[in-house]
Amino acid sequence: MQQKIINPQDLAFQLYELHNVEQYLSYDRYSDHSRETLQAALDLALKVAAEEFAPHARLVDEEEPRFENGRVEMRPEVKKALGVLKDTGLMAAGQDYERGGMQLPAAVAQMCVGLLKGANVGTQGYAGLTIAAANLIMVQGSEEQQARFAEPMMAGRFFGTMCLTEPHAGSSLGDLRTRAEPQPDGTYRLFGNKIYISGGDHELSENIIHMVLARVPGAPLGVKGISLFLVPKILVDEDGNLGDRNDVALAGLIHKMGYRGTTSTMLNFGEKHGAVGYLVGEANNGLAAMFHMMNEARIGVGLGSVMLGYTGYLHALEYARERHQGRPIGEKDPGAPQVPLIRHGDIRRMLLAQKAYVEGGLALCLQGAMLVDEKKFATTDDQRNLAAGLLDLLTPVIKSWPSRYCLEANSLAIQVHGGYGYTREYPVEQFYRDNRLNPIHEGTHGIQGIDLLGRKVSTAGGRFYRELMGRLEATIGEARQESRLAESADCLEQAMKAITQATDVINGEKANGDKEKALANATLYLDAFGQVVVGWLWLRQGLKAIAGLAGKGEQTPAFYEGKIKACEYFARYELPGVVSAAELLKALDTTALEIHEDQF
Amino acid sequence: MQQKIINPQDLAFQLYELHNVEQYLSYDRYSDHSRETLQAALDLALKVAAEEFAPHARLVDEEEPRFENGRVEMRPEVKKALGVLKDTGLMAAGQDYERGGMQLPAAVAQMCVGLLKGANVGTQGYAGLTIAAANLIMVQGSEEQQARFAEPMMAGRFFGTMCLTEPHAGSSLGDLRTRAEPQPDGTYRLFGNKIYISGGDHELSENIIHMVLARVPGAPLGVKGISLFLVPKILVDEDGNLGDRNDVALAGLIHKMGYRGTTSTMLNFGEKHGAVGYLVGEANNGLAAMFHMMNEARIGVGLGSVMLGYTGYLHALEYARERHQGRPIGEKDPGAPQVPLIRHGDIRRMLLAQKAYVEGGLALCLQGAMLVDEKKFATTDDQRNLAAGLLDLLTPVIKSWPSRYCLEANSLAIQVHGGYGYTREYPVEQFYRDNRLNPIHEGTHGIQGIDLLGRKVSTAGGRFYRELMGRLEATIGEARQESRLAESADCLEQAMKAITQATDVINGEKANGDKEKALANATLYLDAFGQVVVGWLWLRQGLKAIAGLAGKGEQTPAFYEGKIKACEYFARYELPGVVSAAELLKALDTTALEIHEDQF
Repeated sequence: MQQKIINPQDLAFQLYELHNVEQYLSYDRYSDHSRETLQAALDLALKVAAEEFAPHARLVDEEEPRFENGRVEMRPEVKKALGVLKDTGLMAAGQDYERGGMQLPAAVAQMCVGLLKGANVGTQGYAGLTIAAANLIMVQGSEEQQARFAEPMMAGRFFGTMCLTEPHAGSSLGDLRTRAEPQPDGTYRLFGNKIYISGGDHELSENIIHMVLARVPGAPLGVKGISLFLVPKILVDEDGNLGDRNDVALAGLIHKMGYRGTTSTMLNFGEKHGAVGYLVGEANNGLAAMFHMMNEARIGVGLGSVMLGYTGYLHALEYARERHQGRPIGEKDPGAPQVPLIRHGDIRRMLLAQKAYVEGGLALCLQGAMLVDEKKFATTDDQRNLAAGLLDLLTPVIKSWPSRYCLEANSLAIQVHGGYGYTREYPVEQFYRDNRLNPIHEGTHGIQGIDLLGRKVSTAGGRFYRELMGRLEATIGEARQESRLAESADCLEQAMKAITQATDVINGEKANGDKEKALANATLYLDAFGQVVVGWLWLRQGLKAIAGLAGKGEQTPAFYEGKIKACEYFARYELPGVVSAAELLKALDTTALEIHEDQF
Repeated sequence: MQQKIINPQDLAFQLYELHNVEQYLSYDRYSDHSRETLQAALDLALKVAAEEFAPHARLVDEEEPRFENGRVEMRPEVKKALGVLKDTGLMAAGQDYERGGMQLPAAVAQMCVGLLKGANVGTQGYAGLTIAAANLIMVQGSEEQQARFAEPMMAGRFFGTMCLTEPHAGSSLGDLRTRAEPQPDGTYRLFGNKIYISGGDHELSENIIHMVLARVPGAPLGVKGISLFLVPKILVDEDGNLGDRNDVALAGLIHKMGYRGTTSTMLNFGEKHGAVGYLVGEANNGLAAMFHMMNEARIGVGLGSVMLGYTGYLHALEYARERHQGRPIGEKDPGAPQVPLIRHGDIRRMLLAQKAYVEGGLALCLQGAMLVDEKKFATTDDQRNLAAGLLDLLTPVIKSWPSRYCLEANSLAIQVHGGYGYTREYPVEQFYRDNRLNPIHEGTHGIQGIDLLGRKVSTAGGRFYRELMGRLEATIGEARQESRLAESADCLEQAMKAITQATDVINGEKANGDKEKALANATLYLDAFGQVVVGWLWLRQGLKAIAGLAGKGEQTPAFYEGKIKACEYFARYELPGVVSAAELLKALDTTALEIHEDQF
């Protein structure tokens, strides 16, 4: 394996055997596609990732973007790589043909992006934000906004940003203060300060299109008074020609622990007479508009986290095979040759844990992407609604589970490398720093936990939660028929029962009124729930591996055996923790609420 | 609290109430000391830490040492701070009066160093290595070596290093190749390459004394053929005058993820005609000589990890009190003022976890330091032997537990800060990067696990292991009498029983012969064992807090209440995981051994 971005067998297994993405080729939208066209797109993305993105990943970490003479300066490799990406057309991989897109299924389109993230998360950031902003305009914007702004973005001529956070409000979006004053011509003038704007300024593209949350005069307080605006860095006339600089000023750069290639900026809107902005969708409906894209954005965060974990795992695996050090336990002869690291039990345990985390995380993110398509294109309303509900339920897990466990995979990759892993002469320490962003942006673990436990598990009277658990039960029943999976099926059943009991108790407490108590351990619930979901995806992988070994698959026997081992690992090492966490959850523990502020 | 290095109440509680360091003032060695003199030393160390070390901690991270014209160049603040430290005499805090030391008890001497680490682990590295190398010479070297080399080190005129690792061997010290050729005058000439030599070259001191592991001609293979040498950077004549440069060359610098202030070097010994070295102790006994210092060195690593976690916790606590963001769960009015972060349940949980980790880790490290003194100065042989055995047993825990859980504390401190925590504009991200070294150096988790489970729990037929468990039982019995601690006592008892059962099963397997199988999950055992030990230290803190609330202590009621809450947190949130880990250990799981190398 020359590239250390993904195991091609695993990618094929997950897409075509586990999730069977080909089933969607029956949808009208994808009818022109075949296994070959999907694979061609993935091969192209992997080639660009390996040849154009990976080689400068360390460089943009070492020489992060600088603020010079009011401009953002960065390494030239970034613009070159993004230019190649633009030329491939992959920036519009999921978009309509008529918009210049490839109309690829969501799982494949996400995966094309994921491969770039695994290769160089910093450079990919500019493309990723552009795709997200363009998607937002495509869904929420007017025809005219789509043509004038989104199409040049999908073609890679304009880049995009998301401007949500303000310095005083952080995650509390309802408190944002940026104001948008209506003008006689129907446009707005924006005034306010935004922070953590990734890709907020640079010289990579002809223009930058900011998607900005702000308030119109008289808007209600809180999240119900937020509107979405499109604010270009450079004004664009009706024919698409670039005009004057808009009143958007770069106030400074933020310096991060990792993810350094993607510049993070502070932007001031309206230092002079206001930044010209265009309302997207309806006034006071901006957060809903933005959240419409949130599922996909959060899958993107989860998948990015997975791919950083995945590349770390492949680097650790290669190192463990090549590096000779120490001798097996019990070898008494100090003159015996040193053995490869992978011969040591503890090294194998760390590699197996990484495999379980990153391949489990990939299965989880692709499950989410499959639901995105089912939600949009399923042929019956019922299927569509069910997919939408399941996707909403799984989104906080997809966002958070990889950003914990694939970060842990990165830590284990360092550990496999020993002292070398801690040095910047090897790449694994950067993956670890880069990945540490993912538990924070697009909603912290704390926020995802409240989303899952406070809302999602009880949506529609708990219908989607029960549907998911029903799917788990079906998989458990099927796996119990296979002697090699019976033990893993039992482990999953115990974990599922434990989380079900905890959910019932907490739902009771929510209904009885002490919501703060009910949600006191929402983050732990999120984690335990995620372990159960990934345990399910591992059991499904185990079933497909058994089928593969019986001749119903395209991969090698060794590959399938590895899947079964990783399934066992997950059941034995990871799932038992769910049972003890569920005890705490069932007890509605309030230790953290009880300690007074002056007792810390 | 202006300094955010330690909570002074906690330091006093731990030293004087929990561990009662004053009991050792009855030893002859400490008879000149009093509570006041101990406190004066700690106050001095804290003042130097806060005023001289902390202010440039970020600077030496941003501008790490550079290799220029064959020299190591670094920020001038480092030399200044170390000069102040030298003038205080704290570098010899634990040494004999007659050697210019302060003859402080080990717990207090370690703590003086710990405060510096919490303030600036990079700059402290130079002093810490010097103290360690000087201690090694004091214990293993000749009178003449002590006077010529160790005394100038304790006075801060010479600095020191430890040269163990070689590029091809890593942790496998038995494979090191540096050779030492005897000369007619009784000295040696050394030839070889060493890597990861912290403080290996710089202009901070008049001289650098390298403690080097090497082989003499005809030495046995493996660890039994390693000798210890003292190799000065600049030769020193019998009167202590500096002479020519020795044949030790700086080959390059290693660039790390964190801990950047302490330069890490590659050194070449004997590029010309051999580096002049002096044998320390007996030939072929070098590893034993080096390991004689290992307990204290490993306590130092553990305490460094604790102090990085501790400063991160205090930063997060201050931020959570001052930063207003969001509203309580259930507050429907978006116009209600935002509340301090600390009002949110999930933030409090993260702060409480940090408190439990860092204060628990501090209790653990100080327990180790107490045993160091008891081992050296106890008045009966039996006490002394018992202390030595307990210290050996606890050392792998002291090394590894903080480097996992206090690193996790650093991660939680980032999470409390949200996006700001990920930026280099705030200090918590640096603590996290700095602390990531600690699970690696001085023996990885994997190595500590094998040390604990493969050797230490069965030393002397398991006598010290049983003694420790007996102490746990006694504490549990005592705590059960206190209504506020009875539940925590039960949790600890269950965890202790679980680990005891696992230990018995594993010892049986070790005795029956499949040592690889017995040790397959040694790292998980290490973790579970550590949780039990820290659970015990938390229960002891709970007992002292109950006593304090009854008027038998010097701290505030709020402080004692916080201790009881943290004890409860540890029992409820941390200890149950031991029970499920023990199930896996009892099953002698070999999942990781079974997966073939080609199945990854």
